[in-house]
Amino acid sequence: MTVYNAPLKDMQFVLNNVLQLSKYSNLPGFADASEDMVEAILDEGGKLAANVLHPLNQSGDKEGCTRHEDGSVTTPKGFKEAYETYCEGGWLGISADPEYGGQGLPHVLGIAVNEMVSAANLAFGMYPGLGIGAADAIRAHGTDEQKQEYLPNMIAGKWGGTMNLTEAHSGTDLGLLRTKAVKQDDGSYKITGEKIFISAGEHDLTENIIHLVLARIEGAPEGVKGISLFIVPKFFVNEDGSVGGANGVSCGSIEEKMGIHGNSTCVMNFDDSTGWLLGQENKGLKAMFTMMNEARLGVALQGVAQSEVSYQNGADYARERLQGRALTGPAEPDKPADPIIVHPDVRRMLMDQRAFTEGARAWMYWTALYGDLVHKAEDDETRQKADDYMGLMTPVLKCYLTEKGYWHATNAQQVLGGHGYIAEWGMEQFVRDARIAMIYEGANGIQALDLVGRKLMKDGGRAWQTYFAEIDQFIEDNQGDENLKPFLDGLAAAKARTLEGTQWLGANAMQNFNNAGAGSMDYLHLFALTCLAYAWAQMAKAALENPDDDFCKHKLITGRYFLERLLPDSAAHLEKIKAGAGAMMELPAEAF
Amino acid sequence: MTVYNAPLKDMQFVLNNVLQLSKYSNLPGFADASEDMVEAILDEGGKLAANVLHPLNQSGDKEGCTRHEDGSVTTPKGFKEAYETYCEGGWLGISADPEYGGQGLPHVLGIAVNEMVSAANLAFGMYPGLGIGAADAIRAHGTDEQKQEYLPNMIAGKWGGTMNLTEAHSGTDLGLLRTKAVKQDDGSYKITGEKIFISAGEHDLTENIIHLVLARIEGAPEGVKGISLFIVPKFFVNEDGSVGGANGVSCGSIEEKMGIHGNSTCVMNFDDSTGWLLGQENKGLKAMFTMMNEARLGVALQGVAQSEVSYQNGADYARERLQGRALTGPAEPDKPADPIIVHPDVRRMLMDQRAFTEGARAWMYWTALYGDLVHKAEDDETRQKADDYMGLMTPVLKCYLTEKGYWHATNAQQVLGGHGYIAEWGMEQFVRDARIAMIYEGANGIQALDLVGRKLMKDGGRAWQTYFAEIDQFIEDNQGDENLKPFLDGLAAAKARTLEGTQWLGANAMQNFNNAGAGSMDYLHLFALTCLAYAWAQMAKAALENPDDDFCKHKLITGRYFLERLLPDSAAHLEKIKAGAGAMMELPAEAF
Repeated sequence: MTVYNAPLKDMQFVLNNVLQLSKYSNLPGFADASEDMVEAILDEGGKLAANVLHPLNQSGDKEGCTRHEDGSVTTPKGFKEAYETYCEGGWLGISADPEYGGQGLPHVLGIAVNEMVSAANLAFGMYPGLGIGAADAIRAHGTDEQKQEYLPNMIAGKWGGTMNLTEAHSGTDLGLLRTKAVKQDDGSYKITGEKIFISAGEHDLTENIIHLVLARIEGAPEGVKGISLFIVPKFFVNEDGSVGGANGVSCGSIEEKMGIHGNSTCVMNFDDSTGWLLGQENKGLKAMFTMMNEARLGVALQGVAQSEVSYQNGADYARERLQGRALTGPAEPDKPADPIIVHPDVRRMLMDQRAFTEGARAWMYWTALYGDLVHKAEDDETRQKADDYMGLMTPVLKCYLTEKGYWHATNAQQVLGGHGYIAEWGMEQFVRDARIAMIYEGANGIQALDLVGRKLMKDGGRAWQTYFAEIDQFIEDNQGDENLKPFLDGLAAAKARTLEGTQWLGANAMQNFNNAGAGSMDYLHLFALTCLAYAWAQMAKAALENPDDDFCKHKLITGRYFLERLLPDSAAHLEKIKAGAGAMMELPAEAF
Repeated sequence: MTVYNAPLKDMQFVLNNVLQLSKYSNLPGFADASEDMVEAILDEGGKLAANVLHPLNQSGDKEGCTRHEDGSVTTPKGFKEAYETYCEGGWLGISADPEYGGQGLPHVLGIAVNEMVSAANLAFGMYPGLGIGAADAIRAHGTDEQKQEYLPNMIAGKWGGTMNLTEAHSGTDLGLLRTKAVKQDDGSYKITGEKIFISAGEHDLTENIIHLVLARIEGAPEGVKGISLFIVPKFFVNEDGSVGGANGVSCGSIEEKMGIHGNSTCVMNFDDSTGWLLGQENKGLKAMFTMMNEARLGVALQGVAQSEVSYQNGADYARERLQGRALTGPAEPDKPADPIIVHPDVRRMLMDQRAFTEGARAWMYWTALYGDLVHKAEDDETRQKADDYMGLMTPVLKCYLTEKGYWHATNAQQVLGGHGYIAEWGMEQFVRDARIAMIYEGANGIQALDLVGRKLMKDGGRAWQTYFAEIDQFIEDNQGDENLKPFLDGLAAAKARTLEGTQWLGANAMQNFNNAGAGSMDYLHLFALTCLAYAWAQMAKAALENPDDDFCKHKLITGRYFLERLLPDSAAHLEKIKAGAGAMMELPAEAF
């Protein structure tokens, strides 16, 4: 009963008017990203999402995945056909390396398509998403032989991929993991252990699944310095590239979970399975982070995506449901009641969500563009800046967008009142599905710690200093534009507060590291509000170029709402940061 | 796998030390509420909750309710036996009128017991809760004959009760309802219509179910002025009080919903069923509000309750789960890792939840005491004040406690990381169950509108003015107590902001009613923070009387945390209120 229509106009506005992709046509892949081409690709992607993937969202949730006695797993009805359509359209490799069959389009365009997929059917989107993530890790760390062996089939979607990190006693703290690897004479390893929470661990969509597995080589150092990464295919690959015999990898069970039922979350048993080292011995965590950082951005995008789709359905209901009268007098006196969109508090929920979603989209795509520039920019300085920004933004996006995505999905559900709680209406599924994004790929608290404990301090703070300087420059460049002034003022105020928070952490964290930890989540939120304020200022500038266009008018109204209603939280975050660790850490553990 | 232990010490602290129930021993029922008796009752209630009700919480969720072909409904395994135990213990009628078999204990003590039930098993607790709610409405509006006919069996739990308000096209806006009532020669009515979302609409726990049904008498005025309330028993009651034949009331289906699976949420069909008027013709909504206001407080309590139980399980996990090392150096160097409760951001989630839950409990019980004083206080002035406070606090408690209860259940789930998302661990059930409380008994947006649109203005603002004057007096009375000063300062600041918000609404709502609607939710949150600050100041004062007692020390630490980390949001709420309706209402409906 739910619908999804890709927000094509907003996506194009961000790509063409805000980021101005055409400026980058000198870079590899970008020449193919003309405005016309962007429009055509988004159009087709939108059709796929709306017509093929979204219709399977509720049915996939209801049916879930089925594990059979032999350990094989069946995905929900229709997933296999949809996956074939997806692969045939080349969507999986949209921004993958053309050398291995990818389309080589800009990453930022791939992100827009991914947003559609994650909005239309989050559980489905994880299958190709993990496959491509694993392929990226092999591309970054594999030998030429490994790349030739795996990448073409993975990028084509014939083979899937997974990340095998977590064990029952080892989640956030990967140093505790026990899965062991024993080197064989032929250079391969025997891998033995149990992994849990493995998304897409086993399924029927692909003819092979390439598991990337963290394990400890016999005799390796303890902790994170003794972890290596292995390629462990479900089926061996014959010399001719065809799929051979089974490799002692099996799905022990499927977890029963709150949501994303269409994705098989597996307990995976590796029983003397054969693996091959990916990258260097004992450097597995670093290699896995290639995949994980990309995955974190993908998860951030899931937050935006679930906010978008739940917004659309909440807004549709609010326009149609007749209940009560406008406070200012009947809006549609000929009807038995007014549509509930006349009620300010219903609008509040929808506008909150809209102001978040549009701002988050612009910020996310802006970051994704730097993901392209890391590799493709012509000058070192830009590549350096892009790399700095990617490192800085990854935890902020992952945490903030998933938390707010979940929260806004809850608000959209609230718009439907009692119907929002009923499965058939589909809103509660958005909430249940969105919930996972706050947890996987590093729980949000870890992202906050990554930000204050690593990313802020890295290279003497170069990343955030460059970013803040860019904001200052933007404000200076646009001084005197009266229409833009509220956006510049809001941005300047948020940035000043964030700077103050940064300085407070700098001054107080060394005395007591817990001061940094205690303020980490509020700092991340404060930082994120500045990023959103910058995204909104950039959008407002672009919208002001077409002040008579309805889309741009609405953009500016939504932007003003952002300034009035979302940005004020920044002051409270700063106050909480400055409270430090005091009362937070005083209670003895047994008093909880 | 989850546990629940009633927070007996905290409940006793609130009842005995903060509210000082012994001061009221001159009032009916309070003489039986000595400290010893309170302790004994809470102890027994806690055992029932922990040993009988909570063990059925996860299994009840998993199994759900089953509707059979004949329309009968089976509750989950164990519910029937637990319900019998519950009734046998007299828990259902703990604060009901002794004239009809109740125990006549103070309402505030009943609330404490209810908190335990709602924490231990929310879905279960709704069955007796609705029965007692319906009994209260009959007691308030029924004829003596009706009271004699229904109350003894309802208060004993032999018969259940329901509220039948919502229809598919008529939820918040009850004026639209179509269920019709046709008067018969014998004074009864024939009721025909379909009601949806009827909690406990049909089940196997009681031998009869007394439905209270809103319907429109033939020829009645349109809108809310033509609605009457009827008693429609599932089975007729014979003259000797025994249960007779069926009355054309049937459960058409059970809704599939996000949570509270152990409670049967029914579509109820009334097909020429026989009903008897409860109260006056066309005054049904007012009579139903007796039940609804009580139900709203019960729902508010569900927010505290789900926060408490999820907190307990989150805290247990945080104390036991070993992962990572404390930022300040290993806390338990002999173990492979430290328990995650050493991490500030884990503490943040737990302390947020604790500071909310304890404050909310005190505020809730304080309000419940006024629920007693409305009827029992000896002087008119106190009864008037109590009635004012109940009216004022009901929407604030219902909205704020359910929203925060849900949010904190989400945080407790987050403490468990990936395990939080897995059904077996039970944390995701707390989230799904807590979610309904924001919706039913008047969606939270309606509560906010009730506050700013009705309760603030009623009697020229007497209720809030009296409340604020009480706060001022408390601050003045305690000036000079240095230990209490931070609490008084925090309370004064929050109250000043709330007063400013009240005045802003007063000055701006008449120009444009949407200004009131636009600020309603932020105003409610701002108001609630003041109530919490007052509750915390009262608790701090009581705790400071035993400064060497560990419980009191911890109370003061948690109170300080409240001031540092929860209260700062009040400034942002005020800023948002002052933004008014502007950007919120500007977009045309079709632009959403």
